Amino acid sequence: MRKDHQKPISTEDYQQQLRDLAAKFVRSDRERVSVFAANKRVLAASVRAQVSTPVFDNSAMDGFAVCGADLEKLPVTLEIVGEQPAGPSLHLSVNPGQAVAIMTGAPIPAGADTVVQSELTQTAGKTVTICRAPAKNNIRKAGEDATAGETILAAGEFLGARELAAIASVGIAEIDCYHQLKVGVIATGDELVAPGTVLKPGQIYESNSLLLTTLASEGGYQVTRYQTSVDSPAHLRVLLTEASDENDVFILSGGVSVGNHDVVRNLLEDSGGTFLRVAQQPGKPQGYAVFAGTPILAFPGNPVASFVSFFVYGREFLARLAGAQVPVRLSQRAPAGAAWKSPVGKRQYVPARLEGGMVVPVSRLSSASHLVTRLAGADYLAVVPEEIECVAVGDVLEIMEI
Amino acid sequence: MRKDHQKPISTEDYQQQLRDLAAKFVRSDRERVSVFAANKRVLAASVRAQVSTPVFDNSAMDGFAVCGADLEKLPVTLEIVGEQPAGPSLHLSVNPGQAVAIMTGAPIPAGADTVVQSELTQTAGKTVTICRAPAKNNIRKAGEDATAGETILAAGEFLGARELAAIASVGIAEIDCYHQLKVGVIATGDELVAPGTVLKPGQIYESNSLLLTTLASEGGYQVTRYQTSVDSPAHLRVLLTEASDENDVFILSGGVSVGNHDVVRNLLEDSGGTFLRVAQQPGKPQGYAVFAGTPILAFPGNPVASFVSFFVYGREFLARLAGAQVPVRLSQRAPAGAAWKSPVGKRQYVPARLEGGMVVPVSRLSSASHLVTRLAGADYLAVVPEEIECVAVGDVLEIMEI
Repeated sequence: MRKDHQKPISTEDYQQQLRDLAAKFVRSDRERVSVFAANKRVLAASVRAQVSTPVFDNSAMDGFAVCGADLEKLPVTLEIVGEQPAGPSLHLSVNPGQAVAIMTGAPIPAGADTVVQSELTQTAGKTVTICRAPAKNNIRKAGEDATAGETILAAGEFLGARELAAIASVGIAEIDCYHQLKVGVIATGDELVAPGTVLKPGQIYESNSLLLTTLASEGGYQVTRYQTSVDSPAHLRVLLTEASDENDVFILSGGVSVGNHDVVRNLLEDSGGTFLRVAQQPGKPQGYAVFAGTPILAFPGNPVASFVSFFVYGREFLARLAGAQVPVRLSQRAPAGAAWKSPVGKRQYVPARLEGGMVVPVSRLSSASHLVTRLAGADYLAVVPEEIECVAVGDVLEIMEI
Repeated sequence: MRKDHQKPISTEDYQQQLRDLAAKFVRSDRERVSVFAANKRVLAASVRAQVSTPVFDNSAMDGFAVCGADLEKLPVTLEIVGEQPAGPSLHLSVNPGQAVAIMTGAPIPAGADTVVQSELTQTAGKTVTICRAPAKNNIRKAGEDATAGETILAAGEFLGARELAAIASVGIAEIDCYHQLKVGVIATGDELVAPGTVLKPGQIYESNSLLLTTLASEGGYQVTRYQTSVDSPAHLRVLLTEASDENDVFILSGGVSVGNHDVVRNLLEDSGGTFLRVAQQPGKPQGYAVFAGTPILAFPGNPVASFVSFFVYGREFLARLAGAQVPVRLSQRAPAGAAWKSPVGKRQYVPARLEGGMVVPVSRLSSASHLVTRLAGADYLAVVPEEIECVAVGDVLEIMEI
């Protein structure tokens, strides 16, 4: 049996070790991707506006384009000399005493400097009477969103609906993205069998590979779930060696503790990997390595521990490997709606849900790391600081949306 | 030009109208889906545990399984009579004076009622000396997570990583899901052309269909983006009629206002649709209809208005049509880091980002509905209540994560 001589390290220190690891794998590859097929991809080069947007001065309202000077004495009746819908410019123009009926988004006719919204007008045949002056000119100026040539998105931007719409809106149909990050997921453990089979004594159903595969795929990565590895270092060595050609990173679960049967640690520590304890519950034993040139994160095998590890370490690690900027979100807090114990000296992550705005563990066993069915009822991880021994009702805790 | 005679309604009233509409389309179809292919699907039937979990009493620690009575006088030295790794049960047993070396997750040998973690022991050959008593028995009892036959997930549950892992962990490989909701997205507007083409005067690049397609696909729906519809009611009628066979719902953008060129409103209002104004900025003109048996949401065409409409109305509407429960999330709040104006009587949704924990609009034009490139820099919508005319620095606002 191996020994952990060192003291447990803090969550932040372990996160920093993983940032240092990720920094060794800088992306440089790229490919052209259609903006219509680039959801969840990562930009490999900044994007500049090909046109200004708005492309031309256009109306913010349905109404009448007029000369502002005509509005000095109201009411005033103007001659309607044309209609400009949104769509192809009809190259209309407006002289004093005239108005052009105009739709939202339509180009402003030459000579007009103000749009009076319909609500402030009355029409009769070919004339319009303007009863009240608009509060503003209701013209969207060309380039007030972005000007041609301006950088609208930087390399490293993770592309979602808003980013893709921004790219399309400045006329760009193809962009440079990094290749999709390829993530291999392997659960280890002799006791694990696939759902749908009959258990023999001592066996349990394997759910971690599905859990981690699904979590990783939500990041937009190309994720491969490998057959559960039996608890043999030789088998795991072969699997990792062969699969390292097809993956940029592996996430493993199980086998990270100090036992003789902890195959992941036994294999990877001998290959220069780092295994240690983090001062947290669940998810204390953690490890990482580079094997056959491929970075590996090794999470503990208990399902809730694997889940917490993904949120606290895995998500950011994969994003960094993918070349993506990691977004800043508001730290959320909520009062505890129940009392529970927490281990002194460890940061506790408790699967929890909101009840009347208060955070309540989904199980009376709070953070016990094997309670995978209860995890489905959680919407948050409540975070109990290291120095807290007992959470009391009303104590305000940080909560992480999951 | 059509007229809006009615006063604008509140966001909540419009949400309720859409809930009433969705309630007319109750799901009853279902299909068997592999748990490995069910990410983002919706459960059509509750799921019961096929086995208890934990399946058997097992060890929470690496250590030694012993008879608790042996721990009354410490230190005590016990004979090691075997080793039980995680994996197949070796059917070991422990008598007083004996211990079995045991790994985390391994079945508890007959006769043992306590596991002493390795840290509290010293081994010498075939004996182990226990120096201190463990604080608890370190045994995870069979069924303490879920018992066989217990309902672990209800119909209507949206399936993500945690739910799928829970299902796998109780042995189930296939589940009943509703068919994937099929969503058709159509942007309308004569002025719209695809990115990558050259603009003629009056034309702009179309980004809404990509925006709405991407947003809807994040819900796990099967989304089809249709060619932008030109501004002709006859064309739109044909498109909707043909595509209604292939879709459960449509999301349209553009053409919802009161103008003669507002093709969506002109077609759907004549077919019994409802078009109205909601007291909000952006996203005031809204509409819905049932056309050829298929529900339709019609959003305004300005990109930011379309985006806000999806978040405030579309997301919940699609989830309800999909048969999914709508999750409750904590309402988030943050102080304003800038001052800006808001229209009295309208709820304002402002694309914003956090700067030092304070919420700041991404554009000095705050909620202007055409600023699609700025939208990419936003992480939240800041919500300004109807009665506020001016947001001051430090005012605390609700913020919606986007």
